Amino acid sequence: MIDVVIGIDLGGTFTKFGLITRSGETLASGSIPTDRFDKVEEYQDDLAGAIREMMQNLVPDVHLLGMGIGAPNANYYKGTIEYAANLKWKGVVPFVDMFRRFFDVPMVITNDANAAAIGEMVYGGARDMMDFIVITLGTGLGSGIVSNGKLVYGHDGFAGEIGHTCAVRNGRQCGCSRKGCLETYVSASGICRTFFELMAGEPQPSMLSNVGYDSLTSQMVAEAAQKGDALALKTFEVTGSMLGAHLSDSVAYTSPEAIFLCGGVAKAGNLIFEPTRRSFENHLLNIYKGNIQILPSGLPDSNVGVLGAGALIWAESIT
Amino acid sequence: MIDVVIGIDLGGTFTKFGLITRSGETLASGSIPTDRFDKVEEYQDDLAGAIREMMQNLVPDVHLLGMGIGAPNANYYKGTIEYAANLKWKGVVPFVDMFRRFFDVPMVITNDANAAAIGEMVYGGARDMMDFIVITLGTGLGSGIVSNGKLVYGHDGFAGEIGHTCAVRNGRQCGCSRKGCLETYVSASGICRTFFELMAGEPQPSMLSNVGYDSLTSQMVAEAAQKGDALALKTFEVTGSMLGAHLSDSVAYTSPEAIFLCGGVAKAGNLIFEPTRRSFENHLLNIYKGNIQILPSGLPDSNVGVLGAGALIWAESIT
Repeated sequence: MIDVVIGIDLGGTFTKFGLITRSGETLASGSIPTDRFDKVEEYQDDLAGAIREMMQNLVPDVHLLGMGIGAPNANYYKGTIEYAANLKWKGVVPFVDMFRRFFDVPMVITNDANAAAIGEMVYGGARDMMDFIVITLGTGLGSGIVSNGKLVYGHDGFAGEIGHTCAVRNGRQCGCSRKGCLETYVSASGICRTFFELMAGEPQPSMLSNVGYDSLTSQMVAEAAQKGDALALKTFEVTGSMLGAHLSDSVAYTSPEAIFLCGGVAKAGNLIFEPTRRSFENHLLNIYKGNIQILPSGLPDSNVGVLGAGALIWAESIT
Repeated sequence: MIDVVIGIDLGGTFTKFGLITRSGETLASGSIPTDRFDKVEEYQDDLAGAIREMMQNLVPDVHLLGMGIGAPNANYYKGTIEYAANLKWKGVVPFVDMFRRFFDVPMVITNDANAAAIGEMVYGGARDMMDFIVITLGTGLGSGIVSNGKLVYGHDGFAGEIGHTCAVRNGRQCGCSRKGCLETYVSASGICRTFFELMAGEPQPSMLSNVGYDSLTSQMVAEAAQKGDALALKTFEVTGSMLGAHLSDSVAYTSPEAIFLCGGVAKAGNLIFEPTRRSFENHLLNIYKGNIQILPSGLPDSNVGVLGAGALIWAESIT
């Protein structure tokens, strides 16, 4: 009999899940579409069925310790998903209370960036760290903060919103209705906005000059930069510069040993890491200089979400 | 036999100390000058003697659990005071290791803002809170962050430097050698700088228009504001506005239940609290709006430093 957990990575399009051992081995996995279900009840019916099917086909005897769920706008304390812009279920969904109908095991839910941080702590590059920050660079900028070996949830479960701290006073319009938030500059969409801003400021030949705003992706900018496109290169330089300067402020809150950059944009590698590290070190307060690393995730790329979600349960049982 | 702790508030000019019970009662107290001693050895000799004298005169039998020390630039993990600008002892002083020659009890040292936060948690307005921030507004701006019921020290003991996060990119010159740090705007000295900047921008009659920069204090600006001086009033409005906007970002890190404003500048009361609260609420991310209080310290004014230092020991023995 081996102890296992189930990790559920609830994304806007797909939901992936897996059965994971303490050492991070995935014994079985599966997925269902998320966006096919207009009602959360129907979605949960389908998900529970798929998970049961996965469990039945297992060869070794397993003891299920619990289920961890990473989901957008999830509240750890309440077990809810609240006003998630990229899900069809509106308002406040009591996700955990509803899902308990199917499985009588401990369940923990939190947002995807927090799950990534816990994943990094349990399985990834932060295994020996008590204080670190994970930044997820996707469509937006998410963050999970670990302090004293514990994820920082805050009094209401909503801590770790570094993407919505102000990078430029009265700057770019953010989806949160305020202006100048870091994620309007540093994220996949922020990179596209910066490319357009730079082109507007100093028009110049670029292999992306025929691409409209709706078609442009940060991956296209990364590919152009890798081919030497000057404007694309400058876009990453500006983005990393801003991220580095901003993270030098983040350090002053919890003084982490390392900051991990994860998600799609981080795959651009040195294009984003190099200017970020340079600007970070330049802007740091003296007492921190030379002591804090900016690192890529130590988790396997394909399975970050499920591992992070499963790790939520291990993290609860450790502490 | 009652359990007691000794709190030592090591300031640039005076060192105050007291014998404190679990409920916050001060059984005995004393003080010695700090700046009279060029060598830390001589200072500690004198301090130990004064503490022993205080102990001898006690009527009830006491059991000393430990000593807590609040000091500028103190490192919790190393027990050191490092490069403190307003002390005569230069470089890195292994304060705790040296002071153990005199007393064989547990000793904890941390910076004054962290001690204030622990004091607030043990004796003050944060007794029921697991997540809160204390901002000390003195010559500079110090901060202590409590998350999950524990003070955030960070991996190196230097967490909680909100005064040195950037309020204005390329703004005012800070003593830390960088530019635009929050404490160059929001602190006793920041208030004087703002008064001068406002006068320069739009010269107008003021009861402080004959006061030179070296003579001006934030208390004088507060007194002028209380008498209705327009420029002094505007100075507090600008200062509170900036503090509120900045704290709305701080919230996104640890999502505290409350932020306490302490220290000399906080004594200006509504002059500083009112614009701070207004700007804070205006700038908050939606999910936080209406849920986070900006409060004055719940500690007795005269004894904050000693209580906070003593509370360090209670906090260690609780957790």
